[in-house]
Amino acid sequence: MMHFVGAGAPSPVAVPSRLDAFVASQQFDRPTLVMDLDRVEQQYNALQSGLGHARIHYAVKANPAREIIARLVELGSHFDAASKGEISLCLEEGARPQDISFGNTVKRASDVAWAHQQGITLFAADAQEELEKIAENAPGASVYIRLIVEASQADWPLTRKFGCDRDTAMALLGYAKELGLNPVGFSFHVGSQTRRAKMWVPMLNVMAEIWRAAHAAGHAVSVLNIGGGFPAFYGEAIDAPEIYARQVIDLVTERFGDKVQVMAEPGRGMVAEAGVIVAEVMLVSRKSDRDMHRWVYLDIGRFSGLAETEGEAIRYQFETPRDGEPMGPCVMAGPSCDSADVLYEKRPVHLPMTLKAGDRVLIRNTGAYTSTYSSVCFNGFPPLDVVVI
Amino acid sequence: MMHFVGAGAPSPVAVPSRLDAFVASQQFDRPTLVMDLDRVEQQYNALQSGLGHARIHYAVKANPAREIIARLVELGSHFDAASKGEISLCLEEGARPQDISFGNTVKRASDVAWAHQQGITLFAADAQEELEKIAENAPGASVYIRLIVEASQADWPLTRKFGCDRDTAMALLGYAKELGLNPVGFSFHVGSQTRRAKMWVPMLNVMAEIWRAAHAAGHAVSVLNIGGGFPAFYGEAIDAPEIYARQVIDLVTERFGDKVQVMAEPGRGMVAEAGVIVAEVMLVSRKSDRDMHRWVYLDIGRFSGLAETEGEAIRYQFETPRDGEPMGPCVMAGPSCDSADVLYEKRPVHLPMTLKAGDRVLIRNTGAYTSTYSSVCFNGFPPLDVVVI
Repeated sequence: MMHFVGAGAPSPVAVPSRLDAFVASQQFDRPTLVMDLDRVEQQYNALQSGLGHARIHYAVKANPAREIIARLVELGSHFDAASKGEISLCLEEGARPQDISFGNTVKRASDVAWAHQQGITLFAADAQEELEKIAENAPGASVYIRLIVEASQADWPLTRKFGCDRDTAMALLGYAKELGLNPVGFSFHVGSQTRRAKMWVPMLNVMAEIWRAAHAAGHAVSVLNIGGGFPAFYGEAIDAPEIYARQVIDLVTERFGDKVQVMAEPGRGMVAEAGVIVAEVMLVSRKSDRDMHRWVYLDIGRFSGLAETEGEAIRYQFETPRDGEPMGPCVMAGPSCDSADVLYEKRPVHLPMTLKAGDRVLIRNTGAYTSTYSSVCFNGFPPLDVVVI
Repeated sequence: MMHFVGAGAPSPVAVPSRLDAFVASQQFDRPTLVMDLDRVEQQYNALQSGLGHARIHYAVKANPAREIIARLVELGSHFDAASKGEISLCLEEGARPQDISFGNTVKRASDVAWAHQQGITLFAADAQEELEKIAENAPGASVYIRLIVEASQADWPLTRKFGCDRDTAMALLGYAKELGLNPVGFSFHVGSQTRRAKMWVPMLNVMAEIWRAAHAAGHAVSVLNIGGGFPAFYGEAIDAPEIYARQVIDLVTERFGDKVQVMAEPGRGMVAEAGVIVAEVMLVSRKSDRDMHRWVYLDIGRFSGLAETEGEAIRYQFETPRDGEPMGPCVMAGPSCDSADVLYEKRPVHLPMTLKAGDRVLIRNTGAYTSTYSSVCFNGFPPLDVVVI
């Protein structure tokens, strides 16, 4: 049940043949993300099976393709929305308002009012001013308080941008009540792409202590939103989704008992592996005779879908038709005239020595955080195209 | 003629009252970039006056608003295009094909063929494979070879992504001839936002040596493309555009004589100061009682137009209606649920202590590299709106 990594050889990642068959049968005249809905369904079922009674709120921001939302509605998923736009989308695709949480801790007042009118009843907050905004625009709504936690074990660690510390969280529970809101619990985030369930332990220990302190202070919190962090395969071994999810829930139950209402917000862990980007080599060059590495330029870069290569954090897997041939290191870059549009330079990528302009490159497991990060028309390039099968 | 910086007080940057009057008279329901065409015209005239006989090829990628291209066509500007999309746009707005260079060193073969059919005759290259692509798809075209240069004095330094070293460049001149192309000269780039003309000196010295070597080797190069680097005001003093441009051209003439055909590609230096983004405060919070700084969240961030705050490289100037009141430091962040969407944290920004959700914030000199960097719909937020007056 483990994904595994090859060296030099074509990536042995298990990929649904449906996706491969479709991609092989098509021509694409620009970089295109192809998403396999059945693969999303398979992942949803695996995660839900592992998560047991926990509610999945799919993190819409990971990939808001309409067809994905519609399929997840059919499957009974709940949704975590970051904005009015995402709430709208979920409602249009048939989600019930009570199944959508407005999970951004930074909301426009008029969007809170709009969401409240639509029947959304659950909101995130991590600050006094945000609670006041919610109380005024969604009176009586349920809120959960987001906590800051250490996330140093994740591949894409989170900053201090979201959440507040323990003392502030306790004060906010009380303040929410004063404002006539219903403070139902807490949320936290272990950090995106947390590869092993055991990495959750330190964080869950801290949260359990805060949970007990809240009860001791008379706050009958009942909802624990464990956020996302569910990983995808980017070259380093991860557990299969069902196993990973079950391990996480077991860790939660050990610490919080089985009465707590758990919300989980997989985004990457739901859709990344259901997508492949079809790209093309634009140029292979050497800057000088003394250069150790080739430069390989693709027709997709940081500003057209591969934003998560920033700091070389997320390392995608590449596949080419020449993968049987001798391999060598190269720096990879995008097609724009922007010097920051370099994908991998510090840790070069190994690709066939015979690679050349016009060759097709598949970028595996790119179903999350790609299409919507894509810029509108930077350098005159159209945004990443998306095809859902 | 110097821009200057205030401390604590409202930014004293000279801004055309036309822009301010318009912004003050309007409501905006989402982040909006307002561009003043007359200010672009004024900047074009100042730069052209300083640049003398040098040809301005406006770097379209800085801001491809149709109205800007149309105005620059009227004024007699030439254009530097990064893609088929940008060439199309220039042609649609009335530019002549011979006034457009295809300046991206990484081009799709079919786009080269298309450009050639449209009458584009000047292409950039920095690699053997690119020359072959051009020779095959635009036979007989003129090419200039891009060199790698050190750019450590720029605020947004360039990487090694573009250009080749001297020996490779010499070899490419010869190879271009073999392929039936017309190698007309060289290009280089001092780095975006090079604040002082004297910062060009080391680079021009290197280029002059290469220029002489090319002539000595029998290559009658005649075109020197000095690229961009023309600065905008972001808080640190810069010279007025006419003075800066004249100083640069004087440095060029000292080294290359007055027979050389100089191309210059201002982008940021042409349009940045002609634009202001109207944004709104979404939330002001403290993470803990012990926090030194407030966090101020805007409705615009790194993924919706302010991409150049990456690494806190470009420091925009903020203006609020409360600027007379006591000021204090704060961390600034965007509205998305992405933890990387933080604008300024290492060097906090000073803003009024009374700032709160709903307050309008003007972000000055944001006419370049904002609108097109904006993501399609990250987190369900629409892209940066653009209004041209």
